[in-house]
Amino acid sequence: MKAEVEARRSSNSRRRKVYEGKAKILYEGPEPGTLIQHFKDDTTAFDAEKRAVLEGKGVINNRISEFVMTRLNAIGVQTHLIERLGPSDQLIREAEIIPLEVVCRNIAAGSLSQRFGLPEGQPLPRPIVEFYLKDDRLHDPMAAEEHIAAFAWASPQEIDDIRALTLRVNDELRGVFGAVGITLVDFKLEFGRVRDGDVSHIILADEISPDSCRLWDSATQEKLDKDRFRRDLGGVVESYAEVARRLGVMS
Amino acid sequence: MKAEVEARRSSNSRRRKVYEGKAKILYEGPEPGTLIQHFKDDTTAFDAEKRAVLEGKGVINNRISEFVMTRLNAIGVQTHLIERLGPSDQLIREAEIIPLEVVCRNIAAGSLSQRFGLPEGQPLPRPIVEFYLKDDRLHDPMAAEEHIAAFAWASPQEIDDIRALTLRVNDELRGVFGAVGITLVDFKLEFGRVRDGDVSHIILADEISPDSCRLWDSATQEKLDKDRFRRDLGGVVESYAEVARRLGVMS
Repeated sequence: MKAEVEARRSSNSRRRKVYEGKAKILYEGPEPGTLIQHFKDDTTAFDAEKRAVLEGKGVINNRISEFVMTRLNAIGVQTHLIERLGPSDQLIREAEIIPLEVVCRNIAAGSLSQRFGLPEGQPLPRPIVEFYLKDDRLHDPMAAEEHIAAFAWASPQEIDDIRALTLRVNDELRGVFGAVGITLVDFKLEFGRVRDGDVSHIILADEISPDSCRLWDSATQEKLDKDRFRRDLGGVVESYAEVARRLGVMS
Repeated sequence: MKAEVEARRSSNSRRRKVYEGKAKILYEGPEPGTLIQHFKDDTTAFDAEKRAVLEGKGVINNRISEFVMTRLNAIGVQTHLIERLGPSDQLIREAEIIPLEVVCRNIAAGSLSQRFGLPEGQPLPRPIVEFYLKDDRLHDPMAAEEHIAAFAWASPQEIDDIRALTLRVNDELRGVFGAVGITLVDFKLEFGRVRDGDVSHIILADEISPDSCRLWDSATQEKLDKDRFRRDLGGVVESYAEVARRLGVMS
């Protein structure tokens, strides 16, 4: 299988594109039930009103996401990652994506600060898990469990599973980043449904990277994440590379 | 007690004002643990950017709220209502107000339609209970149970009690209004904490009226509620009076 994948990887252009998002492209994979996830250098913010191409970002995020998801697989949190294929590509398991952005927060920042008037940087009394409907047209509105269940975006059992998995991811990631002097402020996850025989279950999909996490240097509080782009702080790729360097996945 | 109350009622101006909101005033009651709730003719919308005085509204809402809360007390949903004292006043039990607006919806309308792009009038697959933080400065943001528990606006037990009470209120109100040809689209409740000895429990507070409910004529879909004010449809007080007339509380 590896040889075949390598051969196909050499030219994504020959593969059938299944989906193109703002920061990633999914191509048909080498076997049924697999996809190739390509990390783009493109970045967007504010419902894609702000855009840029950040050279090298895709390569870094591919590495960081591979590293983190491998750690999660090791503690029994099933993810879509099968293996990294090349600088910007990874082989993943195909899943039916649940149309929710799941946000977990340890420290007030961003939209939580705005929504409830909390100073950015204020530690939360406990981790908070939030759900947002993935819908750019509606600007990804926050949803309560009541909405998710009523509109059948996920079943009550799936919501419970997603919350439990998200809190496990939070514990592991706080450890992984904390060990290298990085504070995990908050992060966004996406989940998918896969079938093993008759049984459907939830796996972690998408990516975990400085595009989807707020990461602050624990000593200086310097931002090492996409807020550098959102807020025009400069040095975006350099900060992403610093995260990769500290995690030991790039030199 | 009644004589004393009557005497004091004759002039609210002599009573100590405890709180003044946009549509109601609370005065110190005749006995400890009681308050007098006065219904104003003032109405506001859009965080009080739009204002008017609608003569007769206070009297109508006092009657409707008395009628509905009496029905709820009768089925064992404890409310703050003790008794109506006069045209615009009622004697209520003092409670520690929980800073949440609890919204229950049967049909998509208003902010739910906007948030999730649902056509107004679309029946929901099941009643949806939502929570909003009462904070005009923040424009009453929607809150998930996670926020309510983390910031201790209410305990998890209280949230469960509030949801269960809200669904019972919904059942009763759909019956009460449905019987007189009015469709209960959605409504907003507020709850308070009271102590009986060492035990704290939740009671229904505030009011239930066309100011806090969306009520549509079941035959014509005509709006009989505050949306007539919000959307400049005219005949606001006339519609409120029609609701009171159908409920048999005013001629």
